[in-house]
Amino acid sequence: MKVAGEPRRTIWLNDDGWSVSIIDQTRLPHSFEIAALTSLEDAALAIEVMQVRGAPLIGATAAYGICLAMNEDPSDEALDAACARLARTRPTAINLLWALDEMTAVIRNRPRDARREAVYARAAEICDADVDTNYRIGALGHTLIAECAGGKEGATVNVLTHCNAGWLATVDWGTALSPIYQAHDAGIDVHVWVDETRPRNQGAALTAWELGQHGVPHTIIVDNAGGHLMQHGQVDMCIVGTDRTAANGDVANKIGTYLKALAAYDNGVPFYVALPSSTIDWTVSDGVRGIPIEERSASEITRMSGRTGDGTVVEVDISAPGSPAANYAFDVTPARLVSGLITERGICPASAEGLSALFPERTSD
Amino acid sequence: MKVAGEPRRTIWLNDDGWSVSIIDQTRLPHSFEIAALTSLEDAALAIEVMQVRGAPLIGATAAYGICLAMNEDPSDEALDAACARLARTRPTAINLLWALDEMTAVIRNRPRDARREAVYARAAEICDADVDTNYRIGALGHTLIAECAGGKEGATVNVLTHCNAGWLATVDWGTALSPIYQAHDAGIDVHVWVDETRPRNQGAALTAWELGQHGVPHTIIVDNAGGHLMQHGQVDMCIVGTDRTAANGDVANKIGTYLKALAAYDNGVPFYVALPSSTIDWTVSDGVRGIPIEERSASEITRMSGRTGDGTVVEVDISAPGSPAANYAFDVTPARLVSGLITERGICPASAEGLSALFPERTSD
Repeated sequence: MKVAGEPRRTIWLNDDGWSVSIIDQTRLPHSFEIAALTSLEDAALAIEVMQVRGAPLIGATAAYGICLAMNEDPSDEALDAACARLARTRPTAINLLWALDEMTAVIRNRPRDARREAVYARAAEICDADVDTNYRIGALGHTLIAECAGGKEGATVNVLTHCNAGWLATVDWGTALSPIYQAHDAGIDVHVWVDETRPRNQGAALTAWELGQHGVPHTIIVDNAGGHLMQHGQVDMCIVGTDRTAANGDVANKIGTYLKALAAYDNGVPFYVALPSSTIDWTVSDGVRGIPIEERSASEITRMSGRTGDGTVVEVDISAPGSPAANYAFDVTPARLVSGLITERGICPASAEGLSALFPERTSD
Repeated sequence: MKVAGEPRRTIWLNDDGWSVSIIDQTRLPHSFEIAALTSLEDAALAIEVMQVRGAPLIGATAAYGICLAMNEDPSDEALDAACARLARTRPTAINLLWALDEMTAVIRNRPRDARREAVYARAAEICDADVDTNYRIGALGHTLIAECAGGKEGATVNVLTHCNAGWLATVDWGTALSPIYQAHDAGIDVHVWVDETRPRNQGAALTAWELGQHGVPHTIIVDNAGGHLMQHGQVDMCIVGTDRTAANGDVANKIGTYLKALAAYDNGVPFYVALPSSTIDWTVSDGVRGIPIEERSASEITRMSGRTGDGTVVEVDISAPGSPAANYAFDVTPARLVSGLITERGICPASAEGLSALFPERTSD
């Protein structure tokens, strides 16, 4: 999508043919900065400190992390070490492990001198495939928004989203926001309620920023507000992304997603989850019990960064001095609360049966 | 309760016999400061800018606001103007209107030269009655926590609360936190999950501060986290306050309360609302439809104040530049999600029948 009128992806290979650039998302929305990744450790840190975030983009960055490792040392030992390093950066996003498996498969049984070229080619494919997948998710989700607009006779369609599942969370297009971009571009009057998404404020900082850059009408709300809006008919549908979907349709996503799903269910508001199939964890049959939930630093809650009057970005303490905080990064929304899963192959019920029908090759045993 | 070892109320008459002091809650948790109210306008502004907040304390401050108005001019015209000014400070808290009615009743049919003394006496009574009411709410709620502790054989009782319904929201003791203080003081091992409560962070700023001052174990969480904790058995009960309770048991409270009540219901966690009966609006029979919800400034969402490294308190912009925000201050939790109302007269079901049984004099027509 565009930044200041210029088309961008979130990650790309530099002209030197080996180093990688990313949009440093820890600087948004205060400033737009590009960061270079020139080593495995750069890539691992970029994921850990969340210069890149969002399940699909984490996968793409991990793929290029393997490239950067192989660039230095194409041995099996280096591959093992790189996979181990990258696998422990973030525990919840399944795409990370998927990308590492894909890259390992490319290297296996290939002579060392052929590995470098092969991994870079595969990383580029993973990125292009992500863009294509997200475009298809958007086209399918767009039909849901168009149907809703038809039912409202052209009145504004209000979509609530949580966290950032926009193009910044992927290589391009986004997952939950791809339908919104496509509906907006097609002339549908769509407005987005943007949950600010504490503690890292990815909604207010990233989703609002990218919607604003693209000109999509939106309003930031606190995470507490969605239930009230739904009670009063101000939300037509919810669309969120996911970091890992269990085989039974349970959905792990940014902490607070479950609360919004409860409110949507209580008020008869459709609640959709947009996901590339690489986020499905076919090995987990009960998402609520089986998906590990990352705990992050308490300082993400007790400290906040922002712009002062002169444009300087500072970090301030916002809580009672000395009070501890606990920071669970994700929660799991039970499939019973999800109206449908929007995948690149189609929209299906959030259930083992729904997923099996779309992905028979993964469930045929 | 105590601040740095010294017993305090949130509002008190000064030794001069006419001016009033309050704890300036807009400065907490960064610094503890006392502000003087010497005019009706001081009192009205203290409510509007939320130097005082919390339904019971708003009522007490409004009562003293009438005193300060009568101190200058004990005429009927001055009374009408004072009531009008105070009534439009905050639209949701019913105690405000209740306090104005109480003060008006004292003045009616009383000669001008007797009004001043009478209103100060009534304001003092309102404050003392609030302390007594909250103590009784605490004693009743304490039995619920003690029962839970018994069932857990002495293991920690985890209570989740939203916003600040502690002593800072009242004259003393608090509503939702009064049971917790009394359980803690009685030696029960109680731990409080403190919702930070965006956008004004009354949880992280006020509830955490006052629990810390009293030595009650607590942990700050983002508003998004309660559902996850309840899914995983880490919350034994929720206790929140209310700004207005409808006659059918629907409960208006800080935005986001409804979402926590949904999560509690979904996970079989008891959800209690602690309230003085002055917060019951007997004229509203459907809280979700009938209770007006205040909208506040968008800047409460897009800006945040905090302490820098050198202790200076600054305000910073935290959202994408140019993105609008909408700020609904309250939501209404339907009675069907509330396990019980803890009032000064007893604990009752959240229903018209439950309230009628405790307050027959209000519903006998």
